[in-house]
Amino acid sequence: MNSHSRTQRSDGIRSREAILDEAARLATVAGLDGLSIGRLADAVGMSKSGLYAHFRSKEELQLATIETATAFFFSRIVEPAQQAPDGLGRLRLLLDGFLDYVEGGVYPGGCFFASVAAEMDTRPGRVRDSAIRLSLQWIQLLADAIRDAQAEGSLHAGEDADQLAFELNAYLLLSNAQYVALQNGMPIARAKSAIAARLAAAGAAPKA
Amino acid sequence: MNSHSRTQRSDGIRSREAILDEAARLATVAGLDGLSIGRLADAVGMSKSGLYAHFRSKEELQLATIETATAFFFSRIVEPAQQAPDGLGRLRLLLDGFLDYVEGGVYPGGCFFASVAAEMDTRPGRVRDSAIRLSLQWIQLLADAIRDAQAEGSLHAGEDADQLAFELNAYLLLSNAQYVALQNGMPIARAKSAIAARLAAAGAAPKA
Repeated sequence: MNSHSRTQRSDGIRSREAILDEAARLATVAGLDGLSIGRLADAVGMSKSGLYAHFRSKEELQLATIETATAFFFSRIVEPAQQAPDGLGRLRLLLDGFLDYVEGGVYPGGCFFASVAAEMDTRPGRVRDSAIRLSLQWIQLLADAIRDAQAEGSLHAGEDADQLAFELNAYLLLSNAQYVALQNGMPIARAKSAIAARLAAAGAAPKA
Repeated sequence: MNSHSRTQRSDGIRSREAILDEAARLATVAGLDGLSIGRLADAVGMSKSGLYAHFRSKEELQLATIETATAFFFSRIVEPAQQAPDGLGRLRLLLDGFLDYVEGGVYPGGCFFASVAAEMDTRPGRVRDSAIRLSLQWIQLLADAIRDAQAEGSLHAGEDADQLAFELNAYLLLSNAQYVALQNGMPIARAKSAIAARLAAAGAAPKA
């Protein structure tokens, strides 16, 4: 798309992708449940009927929003980490990537998935399942990187990989929650310090 | 109140305290924002006008609900911990008390304060401030107990008390989030294991 057609589009018709990016931002503030088609129409400056052309129901909009946020999370954090030459490097890129994503203020309510999982955890259905799926995938990515690092001898073989993944993820998620609530960098620094100490205790050489 | 007057009351007029206990449970599922007077009236089996006699606005209801949940949190976790003879004992009672409160299923959405802080963090106002106040008090209680334990020689003086409090609290909050989402005891066990290892690394003698 060239800049001319972008300008034309800004008059009212926005791309599905741009609408869903805005929906994801809104969901971290108002909740996925607060993501009505009317509210989103106001946020993107389109008519409700214009939005209905994209999404026929609130549930469809919620699921598409989760899909968009998932794709963003993978492209921003997970895929770059796959470039690391080894397990420990991948683990560190995943952890640092998460903290950068929180601190970068992509979403006003912090990590999209922490936000929607906290909201949806007690409400059975497709939206809840979809919101929780990425949280579980994320834990698995951390544990897999730890296992690779153990096989490569850069983390102690005696560490329980799932337990270590839990502890590292705990630092990330508290950091996210406090960063959003307090709006200062201290929780990010605390998480980095906790991660460095925990990885050193697990046998990792200091970060290059 | 004797059991006779209790029976009479159950016909429709419920005590302010019972209404607010129900409001707190509802808030961990529907959110504090989902806590409308109409929805609460349905949950407690009262008329909306009967509830308006107790709370004149949604904000007043939200603030009273936070106050009730705070009082419960103190009586259930904080006050019993004050009975410990020393700082390390108090720290352990606070940590165990929190996990018991999550596992005990007091609220269907887990810790009331984690739930409402995640919802309200981006919405400035009295409700947000009140919801976040207890989270900050809680961190202070943990850090104070750690400092007392350091002064008493039961934790290493070289530990940064605020950093250690952050790490221990991180295990609690991830455990809470995962317990609600997954409905099994594994996250509680992981938090206990993380706490035991972290306190041992900080110099604590094994739990008696």
